[in-house]
Parts: sequence; C-alpha cells; structure tokens
Amino acid sequence: MTDPAMHRKLKIEIVVDAAAIDAMTALIERNGAKGYTVVPDVSGKGIRGVRTGHDPFSDAPNAMIIVVASHAVGERIMREALALLESYAGVVYSSEVNVLRDEHF
Amino acid sequence: MTDPAMHRKLKIEIVVDAAAIDAMTALIERNGAKGYTVVPDVSGKGIRGVRTGHDPFSDAPNAMIIVVASHAVGERIMREALALLESYAGVVYSSEVNVLRDEHF
Amino acid sequence: MTDPAMHRKLKIEIVVDAAAIDAMTALIERNGAKGYTVVPDVSGKGIRGVRTGHDPFSDAPNAMIIVVASHAVGERIMREALALLESYAGVVYSSEVNVLRDEHF
Repeated sequence: MTDPAMHRKLKIEIVVDAAAIDAMTALIERNGAKGYTVVPDVSGKGIRGVRTGHDPFSDAPNAMIIVVASHAVGERIMREALALLESYAGVVYSSEVNVLRDEHF
Repeated sequence: MTDPAMHRKLKIEIVVDAAAIDAMTALIERNGAKGYTVVPDVSGKGIRGVRTGHDPFSDAPNAMIIVVASHAVGERIMREALALLESYAGVVYSSEVNVLRDEHF
Repeated sequence: MTDPAMHRKLKIEIVVDAAAIDAMTALIERNGAKGYTVVPDVSGKGIRGVRTGHDPFSDAPNAMIIVVASHAVGERIMREALALLESYAGVVYSSEVNVLRDEHF
C-alpha cells in the first residue's frame, strides 16, 4: 500500500451452493456490511461437508459472493459464513484489499 | 512471495453499473494496462452515490472488471475509476498479486 | 491476519481460453488441489502468446479458474498453468488468502 490515501479492508470471498445465497446475503447484511457482489452460476469441485477426509469431488451450481468490509465486520462474516457452510458445500477465504473511499465500506 | 521469479503487481477490481463498462475499459486501456477481464452480469447491493450516508441498498445489473498491472498504472486506473464512479454506483479496490511473466502486465 | 485461527494459503487465478478449461482443471486436480471454482463466460482483452511485444488486443470467450491451496501445491499449479498458457491466451497470478478450515485446502 504505497498510497497514504488508501484504507485497508478485509475482502471475504464465499463460494457456496446456489441454494444458500439468500441465507448468506442475509448474514452479510445483518453483520453490517455496506455492500456485496454475487457472481451467479459458477461451477466447481470441492470437498463436501466437514468431516469426510477423502471426499469425492462434487459438481453443483454454486455462486461466489464477495464482500469488502472493515476487519471487524469481515471477521464476523467469515466466522458466521463458515458456520452456515457446515450445512452446505462451500469455502470461504479472506484477504487484504485497499480502498480509497473509507466511508463506502 | 516465496519464489524469486515472481513479480509483484497491483490487481484492481471494479464493480460497476453495466452501463459504465465501455467507459471503464476505455479508461483502463488509455492508462496503459495490457489486459483486463470482465465478469458480466454480477449482481449486488451497495451504496449508491457518494454523499448519502445511510443509503438504501440498490439492485442493478453490474459487471466486475479485473485489471492486473504495474503499481504505477494500477494506481492511476484506481483513481480515475473512482472519479468515474462518482457518476455511477460501484466500488473499486486494489490488492497485491504475484506474476511470473513480468512482460505480460 | 489478525486471527490466530487463520491459515495462510495461496490463491491462484487463471484466465484462459474456454477451450482450455478441461486441460486446466485436470492439471489442477493432478497437482493435488482439493477444489477449484470456474467462472464461465468472462470476456477480456489481453496479449496473446508470449513473444509478441506490441500485441493487438483480442476478444475471445474466456473462463476464470480460481484455486486456493497450500503454497507448495499452488506454486506447482501456477508454473504448470503458465506452461499450458504458452499454447493458449491467458494470464495467471497468485495472492495470499486466509482460511479457517486448514483441512479443506
């Protein structure tokens, strides 16, 4: 981050069953994020469920949901999203991003 | 970045009204980026406009545009994209990525 | 990464000709990644091929493939993806992400 006008935020990316989009976006809004983006109709393979160690790959309609928020809000979303994903296939990961308009996130 | 063959670049992600795609990609090319990716037909909610503090969430067809470029080019694109977004709903954020083929970015 | 429960992983993002999706996902699975996401039907412009220095921009149906994996697996995928991209238009870049469930990646 070379620019002093930048503000550091947390980006949360969630790949989830299309069936869980509404539950996930409700969770995101409830936790105070000011916005999110949904990329519908992504496909993919991944482990399904939490406890199986040698999972078969599965194919299902998924969506990717992207949220950029303060670290406090983003970390709450990440933990709650993970809890929701116990019931659905999916993954969640976070990374650092920089924004110029602090008040928009 | 564990690999000395890696080159660090700036990734700019822009979520914008579909109506602004052409203006945004023209801006990206004019600033010297060697490429970009457009993910059409994403949806989302976010604050609209700059001055409203307690914005209603809005639904509109959006696109996500992704650019990976040198830091100098990327920072110019980020600032100009933000200026363009004064006229459109949207967000822009940047992050660090690593590439192997320096000359492609 | 403020949370000690987080595990650091490598995210590899590949933008490639739609014609190369199967070859790319086979490469990803063969290298031991536990999952990946495909965003179909992205568009874009970029340099085509490796040796042309002042490339015309090209338009072609592309896909974006996203993999989150251990650094060892991710770096192998990145190098092999790059070799495959010698035959196709495309770009590949990596970045750091944080996950909570280490065993899922």
